[in-house]
Amino acid sequence: MATHPILIAGRWVESRSSGTFHATNPATGESIPGEYPVSGWADCNDALDAAAGAAVLLRSSPPDPIARFLTRFAERIEARAGEIVELAHRETALPKAPRLADVELPRTTGQLRQAAAAALEGSWALPTIDTKLNIRSMLAPLGPVWVFGPNNFPFAFNSVAGGDFAAAIAAGNPVIAKANSSHPGTSRLLGEEAFAAVEEAGLPPATVQLLYRTGHADGERLAADPRTGTLAYTGSRAAGLKLKAAADAAGKPIYLELSSENPVLILPGALAERGAKLAEEFTGSSLMGTGQFCTCPNLVLLFAGESAEQFIAAVKARLEAAPAGPLLSSAVARALAASVGTLQEAGARLVTGGRPLDKPGSYYANTLLRVDGDAFAADPERLQTEAFGNASLVVTVRDAAQAAEVIGRMDGNLTGCVYSDTGGSDDALYAELEPLLRRRVGRLLNDKMPTGVAVSPAMNHGGPYPSTGHPGFTAVGIPASLRRFGALQCYDNVRPGRLPAALRDQSPAGRPWRLIDGQWTQRDVSP
Amino acid sequence: MATHPILIAGRWVESRSSGTFHATNPATGESIPGEYPVSGWADCNDALDAAAGAAVLLRSSPPDPIARFLTRFAERIEARAGEIVELAHRETALPKAPRLADVELPRTTGQLRQAAAAALEGSWALPTIDTKLNIRSMLAPLGPVWVFGPNNFPFAFNSVAGGDFAAAIAAGNPVIAKANSSHPGTSRLLGEEAFAAVEEAGLPPATVQLLYRTGHADGERLAADPRTGTLAYTGSRAAGLKLKAAADAAGKPIYLELSSENPVLILPGALAERGAKLAEEFTGSSLMGTGQFCTCPNLVLLFAGESAEQFIAAVKARLEAAPAGPLLSSAVARALAASVGTLQEAGARLVTGGRPLDKPGSYYANTLLRVDGDAFAADPERLQTEAFGNASLVVTVRDAAQAAEVIGRMDGNLTGCVYSDTGGSDDALYAELEPLLRRRVGRLLNDKMPTGVAVSPAMNHGGPYPSTGHPGFTAVGIPASLRRFGALQCYDNVRPGRLPAALRDQSPAGRPWRLIDGQWTQRDVSP
Repeated sequence: MATHPILIAGRWVESRSSGTFHATNPATGESIPGEYPVSGWADCNDALDAAAGAAVLLRSSPPDPIARFLTRFAERIEARAGEIVELAHRETALPKAPRLADVELPRTTGQLRQAAAAALEGSWALPTIDTKLNIRSMLAPLGPVWVFGPNNFPFAFNSVAGGDFAAAIAAGNPVIAKANSSHPGTSRLLGEEAFAAVEEAGLPPATVQLLYRTGHADGERLAADPRTGTLAYTGSRAAGLKLKAAADAAGKPIYLELSSENPVLILPGALAERGAKLAEEFTGSSLMGTGQFCTCPNLVLLFAGESAEQFIAAVKARLEAAPAGPLLSSAVARALAASVGTLQEAGARLVTGGRPLDKPGSYYANTLLRVDGDAFAADPERLQTEAFGNASLVVTVRDAAQAAEVIGRMDGNLTGCVYSDTGGSDDALYAELEPLLRRRVGRLLNDKMPTGVAVSPAMNHGGPYPSTGHPGFTAVGIPASLRRFGALQCYDNVRPGRLPAALRDQSPAGRPWRLIDGQWTQRDVSP
Repeated sequence: MATHPILIAGRWVESRSSGTFHATNPATGESIPGEYPVSGWADCNDALDAAAGAAVLLRSSPPDPIARFLTRFAERIEARAGEIVELAHRETALPKAPRLADVELPRTTGQLRQAAAAALEGSWALPTIDTKLNIRSMLAPLGPVWVFGPNNFPFAFNSVAGGDFAAAIAAGNPVIAKANSSHPGTSRLLGEEAFAAVEEAGLPPATVQLLYRTGHADGERLAADPRTGTLAYTGSRAAGLKLKAAADAAGKPIYLELSSENPVLILPGALAERGAKLAEEFTGSSLMGTGQFCTCPNLVLLFAGESAEQFIAAVKARLEAAPAGPLLSSAVARALAASVGTLQEAGARLVTGGRPLDKPGSYYANTLLRVDGDAFAADPERLQTEAFGNASLVVTVRDAAQAAEVIGRMDGNLTGCVYSDTGGSDDALYAELEPLLRRRVGRLLNDKMPTGVAVSPAMNHGGPYPSTGHPGFTAVGIPASLRRFGALQCYDNVRPGRLPAALRDQSPAGRPWRLIDGQWTQRDVSP
């Protein structure tokens, strides 16, 4: 069988690679037909040249064709949904329904449509006008964006269709997508529809390009390349930090979503009031997608005592009763086993699970570990080893002081949850611990598990290092996620006809909100 | 004479350093009485501990005392202006009037007052509310901010009084100021007034701390320290990049303003139309502060020909007629001589100047060099060596294609200027070259020199690497400059009484602009 072509400069062409790879069905361990190329630098270089050219054209493009592209792409995904869902299911073992067909695919097309609206409207760029001094500024496209997508959301974070892709395009940048190698076929189908939509919208052909895989050294090289605007990466911390080091050394911005334990703090009143319900809620959240959500609650903090033991027992029973879902790949299964081993070496005890399942495909028993606050405080680094998959760690603390100590040793996380009782008996403890947790997480939740990441303008899917590479930005939520892909550009005394449309006296068609002389308004500059 | 104390945790204490230094009057070469300590890690560590404590208190502070502090500080600077200007003049040799007393000091107190207003009002944090999903987010204080100020603006960019200081404080962070070692006395006087204002406003005592100097290794260590929120640095590229590498490796954000050539492109029509006037304008801008502005025009691009030769001759005459002002230090004089040497080695020819003046103090002859486009294209790196001081380079190009090539090889810059004629004969050339220049500069000017950096909400005093470390942020301009010192924090389903004031249904007293369900408004959330 021939190797699938890559999409470069508006053409599906043969990769100038030497190696190939193929996907595996993680539910069965069977190979999925279809060989995909591992691109070498020659492919990356071609893509960068083409993207640099497209970036020049896109910078002077009105937003209309960009919005048309995003909308048409959404429609095309919907039209081909059956085939796309089927292949994604084979490549990832995620359930077709409701997960892929009814949740993730609509979320993905919804993101594309929100991005289209944001591009048309234009407020994301924070256009700012000082009429007295005639100084004007806004965020403008940063240049070619590489998107490296993760394994766990084959649609919503897909490098050629997901949130980073949509945000980078809506901000006026061409994207070079590097597929996640666990679902190359899904990426191919999405890439085909994306490119068809590029042609329909009349955008520069290299607005969307697609490679399937690159070597590590080429990844570092492309992150630092002068033609690259930035790179948006979602994936493992180790690989992400290598890209970061390369980009940092070259002075390139890079946006990373790396890892997160997503601590859940259940205060004693809440545990006493509704422990059984919380055990159900927690188990449901922690097994969602076989625990392979970026916001999976991997760490639960409980106050030691009878209620805590009951909670642990209830979770144990639920984990043992629930079937272990398939993991995304054999690599994920191996990494999960290694992480559980590390946690045990650092002092965590197994409550249940802790072993791979003896059947074809990539499966690991639903796993719960526990450790007390003393042990956690003694080795916080190893006890925060990310166990990506269906494994969680309970930390029991003896009192508020120890809870504060444990939280004080937590890494930066995407999310942190606090459950408290409805009667107010937890309020003092909340007031004491919340400031400590708040600083360590991007999104703080009350009485709610972290796995739902709504595509809301107010969302923050980001957080302090090492959960991401910069605490000021979010990967989900429009328009804020677009701002990662903009450079601040100021026009000082520039003649009116030479200004970009968004900074002229007359507001452009989208009527963006503009900060004119200190007031946000959708009006024209008054004459 | 005793060594001056440092300001740590609300007390002026003796530094636990071993070494000391003192300032020198660069106009005369004479030592200025007053020994200042070189702090070791013990001082940095104490400051970090105290700042971490202050950060916790400031996070829950209402904006009122922060605004009161900034306002009282401005008033105190004004009350002590005579003494402060006198000492700054001795330490920097910058003229007392108009520069220090009538321009830079009012700018500095104006910045403090603008920052006070921004803190009170609160729009800088981009509060965003999704009422349907009950998700709310805003930028919140990032944590202790180190400010390393430059030598060239002893007030407006002073680490304990300037723009970065004001922005970091207004965003709710404590500041640890590291004075620039060329003007420690000015920093001491400003630090005294800052601390008195801290006490008057009732802020945590460690809100403002002051060290005078640190070793390079300690600088790198503090940039990466877990207690550090971020570091704002303005200074030489070499030192800045070492701090950046340390911060990057630790996953810390860092904001740098490093270096800039500030290219000025004079199109042929403009040169023919008003060459003599432009020579006057250029000379004035390039000698301002003896060429030691971040936005000094160090590189002029001309189309070769008679008009270009006349411009060069006119500039030469003006440079030779103007007295060479004092440089900020002997180190600046040495670096300038070395840079001019590098430019010559790379092929630039001396038009005038190119030598230190034979008199006490730090002086270098007003200098102009020239090179043609072929030579520039052959060695763009060395020919963009920053010559910080009163030296500029003219690049003559033969045609539009060569102009495009030269611009295409330019580094990232803070500013770029284009002069064109009033009749329209330069318009086609402008349209061709502007897109190339635009991508390489943070602020694009028309028919205006870059040295004026207005404190406007629309200002961008930032730009692509290596002029700064991140192209999305500005160091000047309120409220945008505050956003560097914020972390995005989201509240998901958090109970109403636990929300920060800016995210509650009822808008706080400052009536910030908030993005509520996609609309910017100063109103409450409607019930």
